[in-house]
This record gives sequence, structure tokens and C-alpha cells, in this order.
Amino acid sequence: MTPSSPIQLSLPVHLPDDETFNSYHPAGNQQLIESLRLAAAGQGERITYLWGAGKSGRTHLLHATCALASDAGLKTFYLPLGIHASMSPAILEGLEQLDLICLDDIDQISRHPVWEEALFDLYNRVHENRNSRIVVSASAPAKQTDFLLPDLVSRLSWGIHYQLHPLSDSAKLAALQNRAKVRGLELPEDVGRFLLTRLARDLRTLFEVLDRLDKASMVAQRKLTIPFVKKILHL
Amino acid sequence: MTPSSPIQLSLPVHLPDDETFNSYHPAGNQQLIESLRLAAAGQGERITYLWGAGKSGRTHLLHATCALASDAGLKTFYLPLGIHASMSPAILEGLEQLDLICLDDIDQISRHPVWEEALFDLYNRVHENRNSRIVVSASAPAKQTDFLLPDLVSRLSWGIHYQLHPLSDSAKLAALQNRAKVRGLELPEDVGRFLLTRLARDLRTLFEVLDRLDKASMVAQRKLTIPFVKKILHL
Repeated sequence: MTPSSPIQLSLPVHLPDDETFNSYHPAGNQQLIESLRLAAAGQGERITYLWGAGKSGRTHLLHATCALASDAGLKTFYLPLGIHASMSPAILEGLEQLDLICLDDIDQISRHPVWEEALFDLYNRVHENRNSRIVVSASAPAKQTDFLLPDLVSRLSWGIHYQLHPLSDSAKLAALQNRAKVRGLELPEDVGRFLLTRLARDLRTLFEVLDRLDKASMVAQRKLTIPFVKKILHL
Repeated sequence: MTPSSPIQLSLPVHLPDDETFNSYHPAGNQQLIESLRLAAAGQGERITYLWGAGKSGRTHLLHATCALASDAGLKTFYLPLGIHASMSPAILEGLEQLDLICLDDIDQISRHPVWEEALFDLYNRVHENRNSRIVVSASAPAKQTDFLLPDLVSRLSWGIHYQLHPLSDSAKLAALQNRAKVRGLELPEDVGRFLLTRLARDLRTLFEVLDRLDKASMVAQRKLTIPFVKKILHL
């Protein structure tokens, strides 16, 4: 049997156009946002490490930073490392030629030596090329990650580090109710809590569903109740 | 401030050329492999659901199925749903026109209603278009996943279902030692266990590292010992 030839596929990664800094709920992360806005303008710190628990908005912020930089004419690249198993570490080669590199979920490659070395090398090249900036996200501070290479952990401690503070459930509920109010829609507390309980708890998903409920409520001329929501969402 | 325009990026997803059926360690999954080989030839069951714990080889098998189908001239598409947050559900539209669709980690979109509906719709379209096949992977049987839509769970029960049996540590050690032996390299048990303890425990990573150690051992004319391995891997 002849060996399979490598297949090169192209995934159309579509940064959601509504994931901007305007649609981000800061909740104590203002300093980080200012820093990311600077990076998106090709200014300020050249290396940013942000970390926080899942659903704390890491991906939203990286999307927003990329979008702002791209609007400003900067060359940028967003890469979610959660799919490293379907990519070659060679994808990191030459990225230091860009103005801004955003790497999401870098701890997904921990304990994968070839990837760790590729990331280590990229950090060194970004450090040398003084026109390039990098923003990485992870689920924990660099020293509490599972990375094997001490030299990589040392590089990851470069630059500035921010912890993302996730929104509490009551803050998410308030954000949902506020967004509903802006649209002239009343979201009763029990309905909001029902959504928080049943759906993925990231604001992206919650807002998407609220948009859909808003439309359904207008069409049906119905107020939002739990039975109505269940019907619209086919639950 | 003007709203950001949507950014369309293209991720070069590179299916590793060594992730084929030949390089897969069946460990009791022979029936599944036969079924996937058939699907890659445009034959047999049209819907396949395979599930297993992380590191059980799901991604390897989906890569291998795509590669074989592509070699046979079939139109195919591999999509890892772990990065759904960076994609629009619209990516699933029209996929039923392909011969073979491979969706990895579908439970990553559970509790995201818009994605769940897009997957539900795709299943219906694949069911209607009798030339199309779909292979999905998940971490659990359809009925034990977190999906919100009962209708989606019902669709996911279509076709054939296989559980992937992950390799035990001793089987991984044997696979590593066997691969080393084929290359004329001796991998002592303590060194093999050291690798299993320290590295990510998927065979992809373990084999990559073994390849590197093989080269280093030849260059340095040294046998594999734990100190030598630590030195080569910068641990």
C-alpha cells in the first residue's frame, strides 16, 4: 500500500463580528482591555499573557484584539491551539513577521515536546523582532501550567500577565437583562435563570439565544416565559 | 466608532501524513476500522458515531478515514468542533454535497443551541442525500452527552455506534518498544515508563518523541537512558 500523501485542508475561521471590545463585559478587567487595545494599535507591551478559567472570555478578547488590529491595518493571525492535533507545529514558523500574533489556549500543547519547542522558538523570535507583538491565553498562570520545558515556562513569564475575572452568575443575569432591556424586551428573572441553567454559560451563547428569543417574541407577540422559551428552543 | 468588519481567516489544517490506518493500534477496535475503511471507499453505513475517552485515538481515526477517502478520490472534509467559538455554524451548510464528512469532538458544541440546530439540520440533509456519509466522534454515547435538543440526540442515534477502547499503559509501552525495535533502537522499560509519565499520553506525541530520540541516539552514539532522554528533551 502506498503511503497516504499529506492532506492540506483550509478551515475557514470566522471571527465573529460582534466579538469586539464594545461587546465585552469588563467586570474588573479594564486594565487588561486598555493593554490589549494598545497592542492592537502596535503599541505598548510586546508580550501579553492572559489567563482565566474556561468561559471567562479569553477567546472573546483575543478575537476582539485581532479584529481591532486588523481594522487598523495591522497584519495579524489568530490561532486556537485546541486543535493542535490537526496541525503541524510548523504553522508557528515565520509568525514573528506579523504585527500581532494571538494564540488561544496555549496550555493545550503542554506535554507535547515538539509543540512546546516550536512555541519556545516563536517567543524567542518575537523577542528579537521588535516590531512584532504576541498575546497568548491559558487556563492558569505560566508557572502553574503543565509545560515540560523549563525554558518555555521562563519565556512565558516575559511581558505582562493578567488574570481574567469571570462574570458571576448574577452579573451574567444582569448583563442578559440589560441587553434585553436595550432591545425593549423584558427578560423576567426566572427566565434568565432558566437560560443560565440550561445553556452553555458563556455570554456569546447566551446573547445569541437572547437574539433568537427576541425575534420569536416579536413574531409571536408573546412575552418571554419559560414554556415559550422551551418551545422556541425545542427543549 | 465604526463596527469591526468580520474577519475571515484561513487555518491551514494539516492532517499528519503518518496518521493512517496502518499506524493505528487497533486494540480491539478492528470492527470499527473495517467500517471506517468502507466509509472511506464510499460504501457501507452512511452514519457512524464513534466515542471514547480522550487520548483513545478518535482524532487519529478521523484523520486516517479522511486521508484514505481523499486518496480514493472522494471529496471529504475534516472539522474539529473544539474550535467552534472561532467559527460560524454556517460552516456546516452544504457539507452534505461531499462524499464524506468527518466531525471531531461534536460534544464540544453541546448546550450551544445555534450549533446544535446546525448539526441537527446537517444530519437530516445527509440522511436525505444518499451519496453522502458522515463520521462523528464524541467523548460519550449520544444519550449520555449534554446536548439540549432531544431531536438532535435522536438523530445522533442513527447509523452505527462504536466505542473506542483506549490502549492501556502497558499496551502503550509495548507499542513504543515495538516501534523502537523496528528501528533497531533499544527502549529500556524504565525509559519507556519515564516517557509515559512525563509526556502527553497519546501515541502521536509518544511516537514523535521516540523519532527524535532515535535520531539523537544515533548522532550521539548513546543508548537511551533517562539522563540522556532528559538532556535531549531539555527536561
